[in-house]
Amino acid sequence: MANKAAPDSTRRSERSRRAIFEAALALVGEVGYEKLTIEGIASRAGVGKQTIYRWWPSKAAVLLDAFTADTDEDYAAGLPDTGDLAADLKFVLRATADEFNDPAFQAPYRALAVAGANDEEVSRTFVARLLEPGIRVYTDRLRAAQEAGEVAEDVDVRIAAEMVLSPFSQRWLMRTGELTYDFVDTLVDQALRGLRPRG
Amino acid sequence: MANKAAPDSTRRSERSRRAIFEAALALVGEVGYEKLTIEGIASRAGVGKQTIYRWWPSKAAVLLDAFTADTDEDYAAGLPDTGDLAADLKFVLRATADEFNDPAFQAPYRALAVAGANDEEVSRTFVARLLEPGIRVYTDRLRAAQEAGEVAEDVDVRIAAEMVLSPFSQRWLMRTGELTYDFVDTLVDQALRGLRPRG
Repeated sequence: MANKAAPDSTRRSERSRRAIFEAALALVGEVGYEKLTIEGIASRAGVGKQTIYRWWPSKAAVLLDAFTADTDEDYAAGLPDTGDLAADLKFVLRATADEFNDPAFQAPYRALAVAGANDEEVSRTFVARLLEPGIRVYTDRLRAAQEAGEVAEDVDVRIAAEMVLSPFSQRWLMRTGELTYDFVDTLVDQALRGLRPRG
Repeated sequence: MANKAAPDSTRRSERSRRAIFEAALALVGEVGYEKLTIEGIASRAGVGKQTIYRWWPSKAAVLLDAFTADTDEDYAAGLPDTGDLAADLKFVLRATADEFNDPAFQAPYRALAVAGANDEEVSRTFVARLLEPGIRVYTDRLRAAQEAGEVAEDVDVRIAAEMVLSPFSQRWLMRTGELTYDFVDTLVDQALRGLRPRG
């Protein structure tokens, strides 16, 4: 879309896009998904609401693009692979715990998760754009470990990824426990000790 | 409370209580937690709203009592213990999958889970009255297996319980996968294979 525009207009568009993303993330964290409106995002971002409607059909679409602007890059890079599966998983999950323990990060993510849990339509895009790619990087890392002989051949790597990720997500979303480094480390060790090749 | 009441009035109270619970569960499944009102529950149950306010301070309190009327008994009984941990966990999780795949059961539970994820105040009672007791019966069953020598001594049984329960809850709440018997069986087998005593 931006390819044929004059440089000035491209820069202006990019600035507006970023302002809209920041406004959407800040606002949904403050008022929740239900009360988030395109008008509210536009006014906070200092743009006309037609600017938003020109690029996105709905508030869900704006929010998902705002989130995935950061995560797409992470997901494309995949998890680190130093050859030590446990160390790599602990490293990433500790960093993720830091993020989820940060109120500024977690508020908009919670608003979106709540909207997804509540509404099947929102859920479909939330799962396709954020949750599935998140599970996939873990599944891919586990498969690489499987190919390297670090994980047994008969392990279902998708379910193994969920055994590591879901207790983490669940503690955060339902508030059933703290996301400490201790928790993350024990979770990874305990999930992995059954996955190694036998004998 | 009912001990000193005349038998007729006790029976009438019990009938009203049950009608209120059924109305609350049906209604929250239809309209969601946000739009649920004491007035709505009263009218559906065929009682005056003062009857509800006499017994419960809020809609959250009604809903939690409605849920725990069934679950308290299950939780008090604990999980089956046939001496075969994997078989017992599969048995209970398959039955739970049947429940969560039933629209009539899952709709009110989802409404409550969404309200809990969204609101810290609702969350505290939801966790204390439903989620924690649910995790506890699994933790207790795993501890019994640990005492019987079926699970290694150094296993953190609370995190082991979460490794089994959270992937299940997460698939359901965020709609990231089906709750099939196959999934349940693989999850239990894969979680348990690392928990056995070594050597």
